[in-house]
Amino acid sequence: MKRLSIPAPLRRYLPILEWGHDYSRDTLSNDLVAAVIVMIMLIPQSLAYALLAGLPPEMGLYASILPLMAYALFGTSRTLAVGPVAVVSLMTAAVVGNMALQGTAEYAAAAIVLAFMSGLILLVTGLFRLGFLANFLSHPVISGFMTAAILLIGTSQLKHLFGIQAHGHELITLVTSLAGNIGKTSLLTLAIGLSTIGFLYWARKGMKPALLAAGIAPKLAGILAKTGPVIVVATTTFVTWAFSLADYGVAVVGKLPSGLPPFTVPSFDAELWGNLFVAALLISIIGFVESVSIAQTLAARKHQRIIPDQELVGLGAANIAAAISGGYPVTGGISRSVVNYDSGAQTPAAGAMTAVGILFAAMFLTPLLYALPKATLAAIILVAVLSLLDFSMLRKTWIYSKPDFVAVVVTIGVTLGFGVKTGVTAGVLLSILLHLYKTSRPHMAEVGRVPGTEHFRNVLRHSVETTPAILTIRIDESLYFANARFLEDHILDRVVGDECLRHVVLMCSAVNEIDTSALESIEAIMHRLKSLGIKLHLSEVKGPVMDRLMRTDFLDRLTGQVFLSQFHAVEQLNGHCAS
Amino acid sequence: MKRLSIPAPLRRYLPILEWGHDYSRDTLSNDLVAAVIVMIMLIPQSLAYALLAGLPPEMGLYASILPLMAYALFGTSRTLAVGPVAVVSLMTAAVVGNMALQGTAEYAAAAIVLAFMSGLILLVTGLFRLGFLANFLSHPVISGFMTAAILLIGTSQLKHLFGIQAHGHELITLVTSLAGNIGKTSLLTLAIGLSTIGFLYWARKGMKPALLAAGIAPKLAGILAKTGPVIVVATTTFVTWAFSLADYGVAVVGKLPSGLPPFTVPSFDAELWGNLFVAALLISIIGFVESVSIAQTLAARKHQRIIPDQELVGLGAANIAAAISGGYPVTGGISRSVVNYDSGAQTPAAGAMTAVGILFAAMFLTPLLYALPKATLAAIILVAVLSLLDFSMLRKTWIYSKPDFVAVVVTIGVTLGFGVKTGVTAGVLLSILLHLYKTSRPHMAEVGRVPGTEHFRNVLRHSVETTPAILTIRIDESLYFANARFLEDHILDRVVGDECLRHVVLMCSAVNEIDTSALESIEAIMHRLKSLGIKLHLSEVKGPVMDRLMRTDFLDRLTGQVFLSQFHAVEQLNGHCAS
Repeated sequence: MKRLSIPAPLRRYLPILEWGHDYSRDTLSNDLVAAVIVMIMLIPQSLAYALLAGLPPEMGLYASILPLMAYALFGTSRTLAVGPVAVVSLMTAAVVGNMALQGTAEYAAAAIVLAFMSGLILLVTGLFRLGFLANFLSHPVISGFMTAAILLIGTSQLKHLFGIQAHGHELITLVTSLAGNIGKTSLLTLAIGLSTIGFLYWARKGMKPALLAAGIAPKLAGILAKTGPVIVVATTTFVTWAFSLADYGVAVVGKLPSGLPPFTVPSFDAELWGNLFVAALLISIIGFVESVSIAQTLAARKHQRIIPDQELVGLGAANIAAAISGGYPVTGGISRSVVNYDSGAQTPAAGAMTAVGILFAAMFLTPLLYALPKATLAAIILVAVLSLLDFSMLRKTWIYSKPDFVAVVVTIGVTLGFGVKTGVTAGVLLSILLHLYKTSRPHMAEVGRVPGTEHFRNVLRHSVETTPAILTIRIDESLYFANARFLEDHILDRVVGDECLRHVVLMCSAVNEIDTSALESIEAIMHRLKSLGIKLHLSEVKGPVMDRLMRTDFLDRLTGQVFLSQFHAVEQLNGHCAS
Repeated sequence: MKRLSIPAPLRRYLPILEWGHDYSRDTLSNDLVAAVIVMIMLIPQSLAYALLAGLPPEMGLYASILPLMAYALFGTSRTLAVGPVAVVSLMTAAVVGNMALQGTAEYAAAAIVLAFMSGLILLVTGLFRLGFLANFLSHPVISGFMTAAILLIGTSQLKHLFGIQAHGHELITLVTSLAGNIGKTSLLTLAIGLSTIGFLYWARKGMKPALLAAGIAPKLAGILAKTGPVIVVATTTFVTWAFSLADYGVAVVGKLPSGLPPFTVPSFDAELWGNLFVAALLISIIGFVESVSIAQTLAARKHQRIIPDQELVGLGAANIAAAISGGYPVTGGISRSVVNYDSGAQTPAAGAMTAVGILFAAMFLTPLLYALPKATLAAIILVAVLSLLDFSMLRKTWIYSKPDFVAVVVTIGVTLGFGVKTGVTAGVLLSILLHLYKTSRPHMAEVGRVPGTEHFRNVLRHSVETTPAILTIRIDESLYFANARFLEDHILDRVVGDECLRHVVLMCSAVNEIDTSALESIEAIMHRLKSLGIKLHLSEVKGPVMDRLMRTDFLDRLTGQVFLSQFHAVEQLNGHCAS
């Protein structure tokens, strides 16, 4: 087959042109199997996550149709399964819940605007290749945020499990509100919820071994074991319908509209946009980070690559698609993507096929979901998110890095106490401040020569040779404004009163940058040393740093020399005490 | 003389115990001479700066009495001259001008609260040793801010020079407002202003040579040359009084109260405090930076040291003293401190003596200042600040560092366009963002062995030996969250498709830290390389970094080894292509 030559920019922005060209019958059958499995998983999940976001269940279905098709066109991951996910749904609830009452038209309209803004932000960020901005979310912050979000998601679902009312998006409000209404618990609802949870946990651990024991082929058994959510949806819906449990206080999903997703036009109200902007930004970043992490992990297993900036375009298109088809913010989901991969998906076409399946469900299956208990959906969410709960980051950072530990704890605490938006913002700011603080007091070591070698080591850690008239300080950090003055103080403190000293050598082997502020500080140090009759030298300056110093007149004014190696410095300078 | 043993904490917080102990008759006479000279300089300056701050002139005098005594008790610099300064006065005007009308009691009260809050902030920062926070003001930001502030100060004084009305704290408002009223110029006022400027410039350049030529001793000539402002104040006041120029439209200082500074209690209105907090913080930082820079420079000349955290305590005490004695925010001034130093001041007692002189002036001399034209004060400010104008930072940063150039330009632009508060905030945020951006895409070099040596250099810059199965990447930056993912992408991009590769060595000679996020990234890289059949090794890991890695189980899981030197790595690994 001759490969058509497609212009590079087109190939970059439409990855479908790349993989679509090699699409074969084999690929099709693999994609189709994966699509059916993901679809079966996605129907209950999309309803459940819409419930979590405080939206009508059908919006979950709508968010699982057009967005998946858009991602199939623009995304670079072959196996990412896009759609509603728990964390983004929770953030939507927290943000929109502050602006409108659940169940109102304004509430749904704000969620749609949120998807649209998030889509625009992702798209623009991708087109301008600003994906690196997501890197400012450190692992400790993401991990702390996820932990707290899972706890909030879990708590927020308890009301459905107990069949009571509760409100709030922070732990204390939620728990207080739950505790106040716990007396109104519907025992029937609780029974449905708890038995669903029990079954789902068994399905995760015990179902596959049971199926294998019953003589079912391993691959099929593995796939059937993933259908736990579908089984509980079907069973509890049937039981609730058969015994009319809704009349006995079991809250059900109720009448859902049947048909194509509606065409929606996001509101362009400036005040609403202003109020939602920060939230849309955070949802975009969190969604992107979650999505890119799993996409990269799966791609690497098959020696494929994803292009982060193009992923932003793909996710941006998916969110805009969600906004114009009655959906709400979407991103790539971790658990669904893993299932998609395990089920053999080979191209983004699998996602598009899943979308067709959900479209079919939205058009014809919604009447069957009338008697689906909300407690069943809550149970599905609880089991899904609680399995992601992982406190190991706390222990790990405690051992490895106290500042990172502080970042985790503060992010968890602020997220639980003040909601997801404040939590992630506090985490990011704290990470940056802690980093600046760490680099603002760099490690500096006075070094001496290891006898008989050309190596120089910390005088405090090793037994080394030094000479009284030469002081060599190795700086273990790039020099920039936040630590420039620290360097000044440190060196001047050290030299004051040392009558014998004639040479100070700054050993720059670990200095990757010297910014303008640091250069001024070095000049200041040089002038002060000069007034004390001491020369300032540099050694082991890196190529790129030296290139920039050569563009200034600093080297002409340097009182000492620049030595290629510390060994040369000590060889050539007179180390004897003159006074 | 036997030295009394004073407890260390007391010595730290009351430096006066240190220098007071060695105080001699010689020191006294030196301090006295300097005190008289600085006092002569400070009287017109304090009146002028109060005018600049939009405050009654006597508040300038009050800010030059008790604050100087407080600093003499708590400050560590022997020659710093504390009092009203131009930049802080301008910031006071900009901040308070947004909250109250000039000339009202609220305006003066807000300035007093500003001094009190600034004092508290400085004091707390000093006691908790948080002085390093000032380091986040980079040289380019300070320089850009000062340049813009000088332009704003200069422009704001033009109204007094022309004898017209004008308002605003941003360049455009100010210039528009001036242009609108230029037709109402008082020519007599302008004549006084311009001739004052002319004389002051001559005094700076030509007065000392003229005095020397007239046979006056060099030292005395030098001191007399500093008295230009006193001469113009005396002369223009006399002329204005003698010819009743105030009746012909020349604006004069008018009636000033005579007597001790009043005892004032700052308002504790919560809303006012809330509104002033950010401004007080910025004034504190800017004031501290200006003060510490000059104090450090002067101390170094005499081989003395200042203690930045104790300087915060000293300046904090000075500002609180200003707030309770009818003053406004103060700090250490550059030009006055230089004069103090040049005039022979040896201890902070000189400052206290200056204060006594100003007290005398406030009690007895104010009636003489009735006819002092405001244009004279404006001329003094203009000449003082314009001589500080320095655009060299623009050229310097353009050559040396484009990001720093951007920081200078943005700080100047935002300060001129949106005022001092927004300007300095924008500058600080931009500096931090630019630093994070730079370190988020670290320089990484593929290195090879310089033939016949144990040195390893960039393959792109040098002709070196490499082996096909080993890839060595030297990372020229500490690894932390902002660049962790970049490292992942970079390494995976490089290894995909290289069939021969069996070993990746990360050469860590310039890696001063690996935070939790970066450790996770290295683990992710390791797992992906493992799935490709490639081992990951580390070489030249620094002591502190290795210490922390040893606390985790990372080294147990490492697929390769940790080599003490890159040379060992290449010696011990099999570099031959296996496929």
